[in-house]
Amino acid sequence: MIELEFPDETVKQYKEGITGLEIASSISQKLAKEALAIEVNGEVEDLTRPIDQNAKIKILTWEDDGGKHTFWHTSAHLMAEAIQELFPGTQFGIGPAIENGFYYDVTTPEGVVIRESDFQKIEDKMKELLKSKDKLVRENISKADALKLFKDKGQNYKCELIDELQDGNITIYKQGNYVDLCKGPHLPDTSYIKAVKVTSVSAAFWRGDAKNPQMTRVYGITFPKQKMLDEYLHLLEEAKKRDHRKIGKEMELFMFSERVGKGLPIWLPKGTILREQLTNFLKKIQHRFGYLQVITPHIGSKQLYVTSGHYAKYGKDSFQPIHTPEEGEEYMLKPMNCPHHCEVYARKPRSYKDLPLRIAEFGTVYRYEQSGELHGLTRVRGFTQDDAHIFCRPDQVKSEFLNVMDIIMIIFHALKFDNFEAQISLRDKKDHSKYIGSDENWEKAESAIIEACKEKGLNAKIEYGEAAFYGPKLDFMVKDAIGRRWQLGTIQVDYNLPERFGLEYMGDDNEKHRPVMIHRAPFGSLERFVAVLIEHTCGHFPLWLTPVQATVLPISDKFNDYAEEVKKYLDENGVRVEVDTRSEKIGRKIRDNEMQHIPYLLVVGQKEAESGTVSVRKQGQGDTGSIKYQDFAKKIAEEVLQETNKY
Amino acid sequence: MIELEFPDETVKQYKEGITGLEIASSISQKLAKEALAIEVNGEVEDLTRPIDQNAKIKILTWEDDGGKHTFWHTSAHLMAEAIQELFPGTQFGIGPAIENGFYYDVTTPEGVVIRESDFQKIEDKMKELLKSKDKLVRENISKADALKLFKDKGQNYKCELIDELQDGNITIYKQGNYVDLCKGPHLPDTSYIKAVKVTSVSAAFWRGDAKNPQMTRVYGITFPKQKMLDEYLHLLEEAKKRDHRKIGKEMELFMFSERVGKGLPIWLPKGTILREQLTNFLKKIQHRFGYLQVITPHIGSKQLYVTSGHYAKYGKDSFQPIHTPEEGEEYMLKPMNCPHHCEVYARKPRSYKDLPLRIAEFGTVYRYEQSGELHGLTRVRGFTQDDAHIFCRPDQVKSEFLNVMDIIMIIFHALKFDNFEAQISLRDKKDHSKYIGSDENWEKAESAIIEACKEKGLNAKIEYGEAAFYGPKLDFMVKDAIGRRWQLGTIQVDYNLPERFGLEYMGDDNEKHRPVMIHRAPFGSLERFVAVLIEHTCGHFPLWLTPVQATVLPISDKFNDYAEEVKKYLDENGVRVEVDTRSEKIGRKIRDNEMQHIPYLLVVGQKEAESGTVSVRKQGQGDTGSIKYQDFAKKIAEEVLQETNKY
Repeated sequence: MIELEFPDETVKQYKEGITGLEIASSISQKLAKEALAIEVNGEVEDLTRPIDQNAKIKILTWEDDGGKHTFWHTSAHLMAEAIQELFPGTQFGIGPAIENGFYYDVTTPEGVVIRESDFQKIEDKMKELLKSKDKLVRENISKADALKLFKDKGQNYKCELIDELQDGNITIYKQGNYVDLCKGPHLPDTSYIKAVKVTSVSAAFWRGDAKNPQMTRVYGITFPKQKMLDEYLHLLEEAKKRDHRKIGKEMELFMFSERVGKGLPIWLPKGTILREQLTNFLKKIQHRFGYLQVITPHIGSKQLYVTSGHYAKYGKDSFQPIHTPEEGEEYMLKPMNCPHHCEVYARKPRSYKDLPLRIAEFGTVYRYEQSGELHGLTRVRGFTQDDAHIFCRPDQVKSEFLNVMDIIMIIFHALKFDNFEAQISLRDKKDHSKYIGSDENWEKAESAIIEACKEKGLNAKIEYGEAAFYGPKLDFMVKDAIGRRWQLGTIQVDYNLPERFGLEYMGDDNEKHRPVMIHRAPFGSLERFVAVLIEHTCGHFPLWLTPVQATVLPISDKFNDYAEEVKKYLDENGVRVEVDTRSEKIGRKIRDNEMQHIPYLLVVGQKEAESGTVSVRKQGQGDTGSIKYQDFAKKIAEEVLQETNKY
Repeated sequence: MIELEFPDETVKQYKEGITGLEIASSISQKLAKEALAIEVNGEVEDLTRPIDQNAKIKILTWEDDGGKHTFWHTSAHLMAEAIQELFPGTQFGIGPAIENGFYYDVTTPEGVVIRESDFQKIEDKMKELLKSKDKLVRENISKADALKLFKDKGQNYKCELIDELQDGNITIYKQGNYVDLCKGPHLPDTSYIKAVKVTSVSAAFWRGDAKNPQMTRVYGITFPKQKMLDEYLHLLEEAKKRDHRKIGKEMELFMFSERVGKGLPIWLPKGTILREQLTNFLKKIQHRFGYLQVITPHIGSKQLYVTSGHYAKYGKDSFQPIHTPEEGEEYMLKPMNCPHHCEVYARKPRSYKDLPLRIAEFGTVYRYEQSGELHGLTRVRGFTQDDAHIFCRPDQVKSEFLNVMDIIMIIFHALKFDNFEAQISLRDKKDHSKYIGSDENWEKAESAIIEACKEKGLNAKIEYGEAAFYGPKLDFMVKDAIGRRWQLGTIQVDYNLPERFGLEYMGDDNEKHRPVMIHRAPFGSLERFVAVLIEHTCGHFPLWLTPVQATVLPISDKFNDYAEEVKKYLDENGVRVEVDTRSEKIGRKIRDNEMQHIPYLLVVGQKEAESGTVSVRKQGQGDTGSIKYQDFAKKIAEEVLQETNKY
């Protein structure tokens, strides 16, 4: 008999050689149906593989990344089988599961190109193959046999891969007429797959190296239910409409320039207004909560990062150091603001009465990302953190967490992220050796975070072993309007930097003590936050935040002067307003400005010019009648006040 | 006879071999007395040297840098003579004139050290030597004779210098018992020097190289009148009191950290408030003048600076490029914002109707300065420009200049720089070949600037040949409260960058045209401007600008709660307020807070707590009576409004 431990720490005895599928069946019929793979001592394995010794296990379903991954990995083999049947002579590279679905890199025979028009054919073939519910059969194979097998099939890429493997560790998986070099894991058979979609095709180099031959990467996604595929495709459609890169362009919020550099956003005038509204909003709240703003340089000397410990971690994958005429002098683009803030703390002796000291900065930092990983404003090389570092006594950690949580809640409510989750990351329960800082302080901080969440009625998930080596943390995740989850705010305790910078305060006991440092950023980064906000609101920002609140649309050039008069008045009275004096038909002007998500369109013609009014069209509601333009200014001011005076 | 051309372009005939002194005498007795040197074809020369051929000349007096330079150069020889007499065996290095005075690097004989206590002795000896009114005698000397002369005197540094000179070009100057290797120029004799002061002493390496022996650098200054020295010493005293580094520390406005890096200012909380007030002030004005704010990254790719032409100018004396994991990829810390703004212009097609386009940014830039040249906030390695670039049609240059001048005047008046000068820098009259851009556009821009100054009643000095190769400019210089001149705002036309970036707009003729670019920065840099402002106001900023408008001072700990109540109310009503709850006597609290230049001190004790009042001490006026704290909040709001509603 062997002993298997479940995630809830219960331990059960089973006969040696039992499989994941059998275990699932022994628990419930439902679980047996939903099980996709099994995690054995942290490794994801086939449900059909026998387990021979004591282990920690977890049955994986669609809810687990490992379960989905297995599902899509098998789907990649299925798609490969279909392609092999449709385009005989195709050579296969690699075919992994990815975040959403899977792909396979292939080289089709000369003269054959896989195009979007082939997707239906591939899907049909996949569905046809599914009918035979083929088992996925795992086999160990010797290196020599493997080489022979794939050479006979003319699979040169596979032979290249086998060449690099060690004999004795090579496995293949077969289903139907298809065989692949593969470590697994896989579904027991293809019957689990109920809905298939080939989604796109792109070019890719063999092993990602531009010196190698170019291959075709075919992307697909599959689901255990047709309804899930339908929902996914709908979400994709929705996400496309809300893509912040598209809306950002339409609203002229930001741009990228190859000459300035990849992944380095430039905030255009309207984006700058949006960003300033956001930072002013946060500055106002932070002032109320006792934060002090500072401004620090965008570079720091080598010595700063040697002290902070970051220098040792700068690798070849980072922005490289900046040298100067002085020998040995070296600067780094700052990848975070904390070392600079430690220097602000350290500039003069501090007493227990001075704490907490809350140092805030909208600090722009630079981190190198592979160009292939850059994406709009969500993955960039330069971004501005709404950063602050709280230096406090150990007994102040809880109240500081409560304060920061208040700020985060204010922000979430103000920006209508009503759906959010929190996760507390604590130490590994059993091994405390890898963490720095005293046990006493860790326990104090960990229970402070847990209590703070409880007091706020926040149902936070606790994850053991997920804390950084330097302290526990609390993360916030929001769900956007179409149900996607985005990681936003973080509150992170740090025992490391105060130690490394030798930070101190004089206690009421007249002894020197080390302060606790708390990193916190409710938005995370302005860039990422604005991206999420665009996709959440589909570009329909609250009135107080939106860059252009109203556009005046003269119905013909004759009324341009009156339009300018209206604009001038509104501008002087705090309305963010533009005039559209293009010589276009009024219908076109309305359409174009609605596309730019302007909340109010003010149409002006003969009648309006004579009566000193504007004809108001509200976004999403159409014509809402005429009003004196002075009254419109008052109305906007009131609406903005109503939105903001809560905060 | 020879023909000599004067600065006003008049030409006079003189006999060959005439001297500067003779020319001055021929013009007026006054000029003969004031003349210190003569510029001959751009070279400053002794007044006593014969002029043998046609030349452009200018008689130099104390008003000219060349005149002062000659005066102080001779004074350096005089001080060396005094030191030679007082400390026989002293070896002399170099002894140049500098911005204010002169120095001499010396190595005194073993056992002798020149200290501050020796200054009086040196001054006395100089005055004694002055009595003999020694002539400065210039002699050509062969290299061999020079070597022998200085070797015999044991002057090894001089011998080292002679070694590197070419035979035939070596001159010495003698006065009294002193002889020096020197190219000149010098005063005719020492009688011109009426007031002497040895000011300081420091260490210096021979030829500035740390590998060479260390020498003693003795600084001095001299004047043609005792009164001028007295005024200078008074100014020095005043300047010391106003030193922005000292006041910046007292007011906790900014700091430097060796670890962050030399010359990289960190704005502390109070400095950040000051800076934000200034930028908000300017943003408000710029919005009114139609500027659009953008935010661009602090780095730019090599390609950006190759396009702008700056890349070729990056030398070994600059911050070096930032490499990345990608081969050939290179970024530079941005030394200016214009290339980024050109990319913003170029992002979409522009029409003549879109111009002028005014793109503004408070952009932080980085430029490497030698560590020896760094000075507080006035010479730094990172600073934030109040930058904007105006892209306009050639016919809009004048109106844009008028607008920018309006902005600069608003700023000067708001910040009480009532004393300022302007300089227009135009092309060289005779040689147009070194300038880029068409003659037509240059003429248009040059006359636009001149006309704009005339319209504004601004008496600007015109300097020919001082324009940059890419366009004419207008510079503003302010005089501070103690009469020092500071260069601040600049308006610069640029025909180069639009060309290099291929910027275009569609004209009303349906043809493509190149826009004119205007760089402008009224403050220049925020760092420098704040430094000047501190020294100008001695830290007494206008109320709307000052970081802390009031401090509440409880007369004992018993009234801390009431003080906090007052603070809370004032803070919520827009007053920037602090509380001083230190357990110090009230007298000490008042002194300390006055030192920090807080405009209003609000003393609270029993009487105030009972009546809901504060006892107001106004900076510089002492006690001004009691007032309800709600009324004090109103009073501050009114005072700020009065200061700012003009702008």
